Amino acid sequence: MFGTMLYGKGDVRCEAVPEPEILKPTDAIIKLSASCICGSDLWPYRGLNDVTAPMAMGHEYCGIVTQVGSAVRTVRPGQFVVGSFCLSDNTCPHCRFGFQSSCEQREFMSGAQAPYARVPLADGTLVATDTVPDDDLLPSLLATSDVLGTGWYAADAARVQPGSTVVVVGDGAVGLMGVLAARQMEAGRIIAMSRHKSRQDLALEFGATDIVSARGAEGIAEVKRLTGNVGADSVLECVGTGESMAQAIACARPGAMIGYVGVPHGVELNGEQLFFSQTGMLGGPAPVRRFLPHLMDLVLSRKINPGKVFDLTLPLEDVAEGYRAMDERRAIKTLLRV
Amino acid sequence: MFGTMLYGKGDVRCEAVPEPEILKPTDAIIKLSASCICGSDLWPYRGLNDVTAPMAMGHEYCGIVTQVGSAVRTVRPGQFVVGSFCLSDNTCPHCRFGFQSSCEQREFMSGAQAPYARVPLADGTLVATDTVPDDDLLPSLLATSDVLGTGWYAADAARVQPGSTVVVVGDGAVGLMGVLAARQMEAGRIIAMSRHKSRQDLALEFGATDIVSARGAEGIAEVKRLTGNVGADSVLECVGTGESMAQAIACARPGAMIGYVGVPHGVELNGEQLFFSQTGMLGGPAPVRRFLPHLMDLVLSRKINPGKVFDLTLPLEDVAEGYRAMDERRAIKTLLRV
Repeated sequence: MFGTMLYGKGDVRCEAVPEPEILKPTDAIIKLSASCICGSDLWPYRGLNDVTAPMAMGHEYCGIVTQVGSAVRTVRPGQFVVGSFCLSDNTCPHCRFGFQSSCEQREFMSGAQAPYARVPLADGTLVATDTVPDDDLLPSLLATSDVLGTGWYAADAARVQPGSTVVVVGDGAVGLMGVLAARQMEAGRIIAMSRHKSRQDLALEFGATDIVSARGAEGIAEVKRLTGNVGADSVLECVGTGESMAQAIACARPGAMIGYVGVPHGVELNGEQLFFSQTGMLGGPAPVRRFLPHLMDLVLSRKINPGKVFDLTLPLEDVAEGYRAMDERRAIKTLLRV
Repeated sequence: MFGTMLYGKGDVRCEAVPEPEILKPTDAIIKLSASCICGSDLWPYRGLNDVTAPMAMGHEYCGIVTQVGSAVRTVRPGQFVVGSFCLSDNTCPHCRFGFQSSCEQREFMSGAQAPYARVPLADGTLVATDTVPDDDLLPSLLATSDVLGTGWYAADAARVQPGSTVVVVGDGAVGLMGVLAARQMEAGRIIAMSRHKSRQDLALEFGATDIVSARGAEGIAEVKRLTGNVGADSVLECVGTGESMAQAIACARPGAMIGYVGVPHGVELNGEQLFFSQTGMLGGPAPVRRFLPHLMDLVLSRKINPGKVFDLTLPLEDVAEGYRAMDERRAIKTLLRV
């Protein structure tokens, strides 16, 4: 089959790769219904993470189970499944606390920008639907695997409550999903910080009540003005730079929580400053598995349409163009037909 | 009258000072029933904070109202009151969110190591009892003003739940009050990290289920062993150094909250490390006013006895010896008869 391999900075290829096989009794093989490119795939693509050997790319996935290992009990061939980008046993103490992304057996998914993929820890990772869903739901179901689950975790970690005031820092796919999540959690006001018209429009469609296009001190002042000089109850930090984190902290009222899901790159936090601002913080790789059944239900019942975040669809053989389009911000997120 | 003034490092004096007067219509004057020395008073006493002019010391207080300004509505002369070390209007948005220590009008109390004190923002700050309480309750009522309220906030910020596993870092008066708070919040297991026999004994009396006397890597390993290699659900950081914060983070399970109330001195936090450890954090000056009515009820109904944290009682004229005893760790906390 053909799959996606990253060789180094800017060098991603669709090429012949071995078909995946069951390696452990807890594995499953799935035939992907669709795949996609993640914002985090751009880090190694941009040369910001070391690539020492060709990497099998892709960690967002949904599809039909074709084979299961001898120990797999909860899914069977023929079922449609979605799984998290974090593979987990869903039974260890961390999983039981709802932090499956810190599972004692945690692995990260790879190789899902391809027609078939191996899913380790299948019982703890995959969630099956009762029937095979309609094709038009596939983009939204695929989104639950990572980008929606991550935006949802940001809102959960930021403790969004009905009626609360939320600021979303970052208008990438995860930030937009954070807007959707805050809306589902019945936030009263959702302020999306975005400078790009197409992303502003999508934020409004997903439930943003206000758009702030300014950044830095000016953006903070605008958020303060919108909140009666109080600041937000919850801030979703969906970027991961020092600037975005500083902006998130400055937009938070005392006692607010920041849910941060952008992997921090070189972010140092001053303890004394956080102390006196009384800013609460919780972040990390999203424990998508905790939310997955609920998110899949919301999609299957057509209450949410997170698949709208895909604004470019390409066949797998054009995966390199998909990376380029996201890298150049011509696309928010690329869906791959596999 | 005589009051307590700090002139510089190690130089604290009981000397003649003017009696306090109503300066604003929102002020009250109280005759203190008792006063005490706070661990935070030791920072300037040790020369770690600049002292550019003589400072009127003391911010923990309870006593009888003797005068009120013309705008004061909720307390009247003759009433027994307790107030927070943070003075607040209790009406601004931050106060209504329960973060009175970030009140838009916030001031910090001073001059309470004396027989009389002025309390600004009396309506928002003071809580009166129905009747004048018995003398034996005074130490515990005094404790609610700061040290208990601060330990309580640490437990609240760390989201201690019934049945949860709690680690308390720091065996000073605040840490010991954190143990008491966690016990009242029905924590299932309370691990106090303490190296001093007298403090260990008090921690056990206040509800600690386990004592860990080792620090650093060895202490962390012991906490991990006690928690089945999982870590604690909630960690109370009651010191404020880089070492104590690192210890708190290492003792927390993924998804745990750290409530930190030791003012961070030179603490830098690595964003990427906090992200991957999924450590939640909330700290700051305690919004004691939020908890004060409940804490006073617990004392008045004799359900808790936080006053036991005072292990040295001195007359006001010996205040310098009180500072020395705490500085040299001969005393946990000094009560002053005023």
